[in-house]
Amino acid sequence: MIFSSEELKRFAKDVFIKIGCPEKEALQAAEVLVSADLRGVDSHGVARLSGYIRLHEKGRLNANPEIKTVHETPSTAVVDGDLGLGLVVGPTAMNLAIEKAKNVGSGWVSVKNSNHYGIAGYHAMMALESDCIGISLTNASPLVSPTFSKERLLGTNPISIAIPTKNQPPFVLDMATTTAANGKLEVLQRKGMNAPEGWLQDQEGHITTDAKGLVKGGSMRPLGGDREHGSHKGYALGAVVDILSAVLSGANYGPWVPPFVAFIDPAPNPVGEGLGHFFGAMRIDAFRDGEEFKEHMDNWIERFRASETVNKEDKVLIPGDPERQTTEERLKNGIDLLQPVVDDLQELGNKLGVPLT
Amino acid sequence: MIFSSEELKRFAKDVFIKIGCPEKEALQAAEVLVSADLRGVDSHGVARLSGYIRLHEKGRLNANPEIKTVHETPSTAVVDGDLGLGLVVGPTAMNLAIEKAKNVGSGWVSVKNSNHYGIAGYHAMMALESDCIGISLTNASPLVSPTFSKERLLGTNPISIAIPTKNQPPFVLDMATTTAANGKLEVLQRKGMNAPEGWLQDQEGHITTDAKGLVKGGSMRPLGGDREHGSHKGYALGAVVDILSAVLSGANYGPWVPPFVAFIDPAPNPVGEGLGHFFGAMRIDAFRDGEEFKEHMDNWIERFRASETVNKEDKVLIPGDPERQTTEERLKNGIDLLQPVVDDLQELGNKLGVPLT
Repeated sequence: MIFSSEELKRFAKDVFIKIGCPEKEALQAAEVLVSADLRGVDSHGVARLSGYIRLHEKGRLNANPEIKTVHETPSTAVVDGDLGLGLVVGPTAMNLAIEKAKNVGSGWVSVKNSNHYGIAGYHAMMALESDCIGISLTNASPLVSPTFSKERLLGTNPISIAIPTKNQPPFVLDMATTTAANGKLEVLQRKGMNAPEGWLQDQEGHITTDAKGLVKGGSMRPLGGDREHGSHKGYALGAVVDILSAVLSGANYGPWVPPFVAFIDPAPNPVGEGLGHFFGAMRIDAFRDGEEFKEHMDNWIERFRASETVNKEDKVLIPGDPERQTTEERLKNGIDLLQPVVDDLQELGNKLGVPLT
Repeated sequence: MIFSSEELKRFAKDVFIKIGCPEKEALQAAEVLVSADLRGVDSHGVARLSGYIRLHEKGRLNANPEIKTVHETPSTAVVDGDLGLGLVVGPTAMNLAIEKAKNVGSGWVSVKNSNHYGIAGYHAMMALESDCIGISLTNASPLVSPTFSKERLLGTNPISIAIPTKNQPPFVLDMATTTAANGKLEVLQRKGMNAPEGWLQDQEGHITTDAKGLVKGGSMRPLGGDREHGSHKGYALGAVVDILSAVLSGANYGPWVPPFVAFIDPAPNPVGEGLGHFFGAMRIDAFRDGEEFKEHMDNWIERFRASETVNKEDKVLIPGDPERQTTEERLKNGIDLLQPVVDDLQELGNKLGVPLT
């Protein structure tokens, strides 16, 4: 069923208002959520809306948080999200990072006591309009096993980095530190297809191609897939994301990160508060003339786009290209939600008295 | 043949002095170089010494540079390395980043007009003694093809991140953004063994297991190996390293990065000056109480070390463990250099009148 992004935003906003979010924050949260649907990261868009509401019902999410800076220097800060929506806490913290970059060249904000913040890319891209390089990291529900381990100790812990350009579209890296994002697995599960080797391991820690391996108690493999192919690098990157997001801020880390799904209780004896994010902003003209930087970014991108490819039908892509193409297409033709997602949203809307049209 | 690290440092220092480096800088350069031998990254240690000297002979390396800060804000700077040894320019720039971190919480320094800086980890680890998180990136000779490309457009562009701890040894990530580091390939070449799939492609861009593929005009694959296993992520990470190191500073980027080997001329029409690095330092107590941070780092590490493993004989490693074990072993037993490396160093020593004993 096809919806316009505006309608989905309106619906999500009204749902957030119903659980007690102030209007401005509800709008912000809806904006972040639907940006995932627009960018083709369907797993992080409105499909997750009812998940946030269930967390609220469980008392694990504060709809009207008092977001506070609890420690700071001219270029750094720790923000306490007061258990608010990451969709609201994230942009607040990112704005603080940008503000600091305006004052002293760069700003770095680690966040505790937050919840899932949607797609990493949204927050990183906020920096672009201030001619800053934006960085956004978050930890997440433990689903990933370090190399050699059979335990779930890390989340898919994404890294997003957005870099301003002149005439070319911005460079936007937005990646999970696993071989494949969870959303890609869900697609294979729905189609009844196998996953490539290196994506997943079963409960005993052995490689599996069963796309339902995660549901059956297995775990995801870090980028690289196995030691021979560098999975220790994916593991180490995921670890850095965890440490900057949570050990630096005072949030929960590793296996203590509270799960997104409300039916799994958080680990007992938490080591911090909520989950954690990490944001950075660096003003490009804190390094060199901004126009010069942007011209060289365009040149970088044009050279890579022009690269000779192995197969003539392929093109070398620039990070952000696929998501931007999906956004253009979906702004024009609307967002085609899967029927189970539509059913879920309609049920949620009926319960809260918010029509989805 | 076995040498003590002190003897190798003395030899490298004297060689650098012979080409005109001031004594203090020669010592610094030797220290960085031999730290690679100690950490087991043999490809970046004294085996490269004669390569630096050949660059000097070609006029592509300035033994007595005037390293200058050419642009700065309280938390950022661009440093011009005056075509000096990266082994000297790197630590100078990293010290500036640490200084800025002391003043305003964090410091970020992009470097142009430099040369190869040895192992990334050395520079990142400099931050540890100031209770800072250290970050070190560099671009490098183009050897890597982006996903779908058959051209060499990126270097192995490493990422190193060092994080302070309390009683545990520090967390030190030091990784190439390729599936495997070049040094591992060289080991396979010497042993006449094949490389695993996903490490290399041939000149036409097709996967090859020939460990000599690179010498035959092929290229290295980004971490992930192929699109299905996430090579677009390794490519994007390598791209970010290139951009922060060179587009931000005004160095050469992508295929324009000057090759380390003196027998290949730099690309005509350079887009910048020399090659580029990027350094960062963040004071841990710019985020939270330093002791508290370190205690939680220890807890993080202890939890991961205690993880249940797939095979009983394996242990979950913490980034930096293998290099630290090698360092301990080599400090005790000396550094066993391969005969071709010894021959090369002796030839160099004879030419410059510096004995290797």
